[in-house]
Amino acid sequence: MPDYLSLSKEQLESKKAELQKQYEIFKAKNLKLDMSRGKPGADQLDLSLEVLDCINSSESCKSEGGADCRNYGLLDGIPEAKKLFADILEVKPSEIIIDGNSSLNMMYDTIARAETHGILGETPWCKLDHVKFLCPSPGYDRHFKVTEFFGIEMITIEMNSDGPNMDEVERLVESDPSIKGIWCVPKYSNPQGITYSDEVVTRFAKLKPAAPDFRIFWDNAYCVHHLTDTPDKLLNILDACRENGNENMVYIFGSTSKISFPGSGVAMMACSEENIEDTKRQLAFQTIGPDKLNQLRHVRFFKNADGIAAHMKKHATIIKPKFDVVIESLERELGGTGLLSWTNPNGGYFISVDTLDCCAKRIVQLCGEAGVVMTPAGATYPYGIDPHDRNVRISPTFPSIQELETAIELFCLCVKLASLEKLLEND
Amino acid sequence: MPDYLSLSKEQLESKKAELQKQYEIFKAKNLKLDMSRGKPGADQLDLSLEVLDCINSSESCKSEGGADCRNYGLLDGIPEAKKLFADILEVKPSEIIIDGNSSLNMMYDTIARAETHGILGETPWCKLDHVKFLCPSPGYDRHFKVTEFFGIEMITIEMNSDGPNMDEVERLVESDPSIKGIWCVPKYSNPQGITYSDEVVTRFAKLKPAAPDFRIFWDNAYCVHHLTDTPDKLLNILDACRENGNENMVYIFGSTSKISFPGSGVAMMACSEENIEDTKRQLAFQTIGPDKLNQLRHVRFFKNADGIAAHMKKHATIIKPKFDVVIESLERELGGTGLLSWTNPNGGYFISVDTLDCCAKRIVQLCGEAGVVMTPAGATYPYGIDPHDRNVRISPTFPSIQELETAIELFCLCVKLASLEKLLEND
Repeated sequence: MPDYLSLSKEQLESKKAELQKQYEIFKAKNLKLDMSRGKPGADQLDLSLEVLDCINSSESCKSEGGADCRNYGLLDGIPEAKKLFADILEVKPSEIIIDGNSSLNMMYDTIARAETHGILGETPWCKLDHVKFLCPSPGYDRHFKVTEFFGIEMITIEMNSDGPNMDEVERLVESDPSIKGIWCVPKYSNPQGITYSDEVVTRFAKLKPAAPDFRIFWDNAYCVHHLTDTPDKLLNILDACRENGNENMVYIFGSTSKISFPGSGVAMMACSEENIEDTKRQLAFQTIGPDKLNQLRHVRFFKNADGIAAHMKKHATIIKPKFDVVIESLERELGGTGLLSWTNPNGGYFISVDTLDCCAKRIVQLCGEAGVVMTPAGATYPYGIDPHDRNVRISPTFPSIQELETAIELFCLCVKLASLEKLLEND
Repeated sequence: MPDYLSLSKEQLESKKAELQKQYEIFKAKNLKLDMSRGKPGADQLDLSLEVLDCINSSESCKSEGGADCRNYGLLDGIPEAKKLFADILEVKPSEIIIDGNSSLNMMYDTIARAETHGILGETPWCKLDHVKFLCPSPGYDRHFKVTEFFGIEMITIEMNSDGPNMDEVERLVESDPSIKGIWCVPKYSNPQGITYSDEVVTRFAKLKPAAPDFRIFWDNAYCVHHLTDTPDKLLNILDACRENGNENMVYIFGSTSKISFPGSGVAMMACSEENIEDTKRQLAFQTIGPDKLNQLRHVRFFKNADGIAAHMKKHATIIKPKFDVVIESLERELGGTGLLSWTNPNGGYFISVDTLDCCAKRIVQLCGEAGVVMTPAGATYPYGIDPHDRNVRISPTFPSIQELETAIELFCLCVKLASLEKLLEND
């Protein structure tokens, strides 16, 4: 591939005309493909079908403590689910709450309670003039949407290859008491697929926040979602916080959304026992309890952490080839062109690419007009605004390999086309 | 039975000594019975076991629109669930949202959103100095707990035999803009089991609230929970509101908690399309969607409104005899004594009794000390304070008939004993 950045204007013009023709051919195909969301494919969902079949008699509805999971009770989850998911999140069963089907909902609720009631006796956020969150970006669009919904001011923090820029995080968190939280996807991050280094996690644990109710929202969504046999390792944040006298500073979230079923999995929250007690006290007003039968189904099927690990290998067998298709296409079509950089993660659900500045929106638009839906450009930044307009999230899991090959071929074409437009414009 | 109110002091003393002996015999039995919560018995839960067995292949996970219910999407529920439960709540499918496992949680969330974001553009309640709710009482303790949690001032409204005292409701709602809501269980109310008359519903629909964001929280929890072949009929509040230009004034809630499983049922909210749109817009920040597989299970099992009606007859066959045991015991032991009045409902989960003034707490205490747990006296009133200390809620569904016979025998004894104590004290 030529280094596009060193081509002459004439060469660019001629290349562009050629690409434009190829693009028109794609458009004529009337594609209808979706690479926009991190959804598992149907073959992945089939791996967990037996989850649905674990419970079918009165006797099989009993929790190990004897409770009938069909009836009211057990606000914070059934004991066997606490045990299983405490193992997964590397906490104690007394440090976890097992809830409904959505960890995003648990994060939302945690912020909603902080807004109306405050955290551990501090002033409710809705009574304050300014509440701010740090948002390492690119990051998860749904996190940013929650803080935006509550009118919380979002401050973009640059992401390095080993996690957020901790100089910035420390400077801001330790000086500004209106900073109440930070969003983190610490393992196989959304969208880059990177894992925070031990140094980054340790610096988080050692923070001395200006606000006593500052909390790290540690969304460990992809904790067991490895793609290779050499998985990333993430330092235990709760332990690290505890060692630094900061055990109340972190809320950890997780779910089986991408282990069993995105709509019908089990979500959980882990934190210090003091945070757990405060959360449970408030939860008791909100609900009489979670869907315990669904928790039981999951425990019966997965049995233990090893069961989950074995299951995740089956997922990897299905989706790793899809990641490979994307990476290989990007290397083949765009390697050495200077037009695109990308991540090559060991796990998670996404590949993150950076285009030339001011090209991402145009690329997503070109893809869309030719029938391939991408995550909207900018979505990975607070308020949907990517200051460089260069980040695009690729979600390779949902389409079939064949669809993916077509979609990524079009994507590469659109990267070239939009980049040439930009280079010619700048010329 | 003697009319205790006309006995002489000596007669009361002698009667009390006799009852005291009987009470000591009960105490020696070391009973451990629970009449405190409206829980279905295990035999009722068995009626719905097949709900758990309806889905077990990829094909059976498809909604009628073709959506794979195992995956993300469909924020407001699957179309067939909307259709089924719209029929049950007598609204259109466009006027309903099908959510997770708890209607209490939906009510809580509705109030939480009103607190932080306001209703249809009105000022968020958390920004106001005073927010008040009307609480027809005796009523449902968990309703009152939600409003108490949000620091909403609760005003007790007297309950008549056909619903709340509407003179009071009209006077307050139409004059005080800080009154933002009212809790109602309009059919087979908790705890009296009464159904609001057409006149009461119509007067609700004709309210001219001082607050534009005043809402009726219409918890139709027992809409299909008949105990007899001559069920009560409840006027359609949404239709009535619409006829009076008030269609945004009511939120209706329901669930299958006491149709299928209390912890693993399906909950729903019905209201005008404008309210639905506003709610959906906000829900989109909170979650990616409900557990659609559980919705699908319910539709597959119940099929349609007739299926639910037939199913509820099976419930009635199991629990009506329990209600009969209570009513017959009360009549036999306390009829004509002047010590107790009670309701005899056509549906629902509770019987409400009124004791002599200042006796309810003592009766519940005496029952507890002899091993029978009752709902705490006062729980049916805001802040847990029954101004007359006379209302007790009886929940007959969970114990077996035999346990219930023992428990209610003890209860009647405790009513007599506490009443005699009070009569002698007043003497």
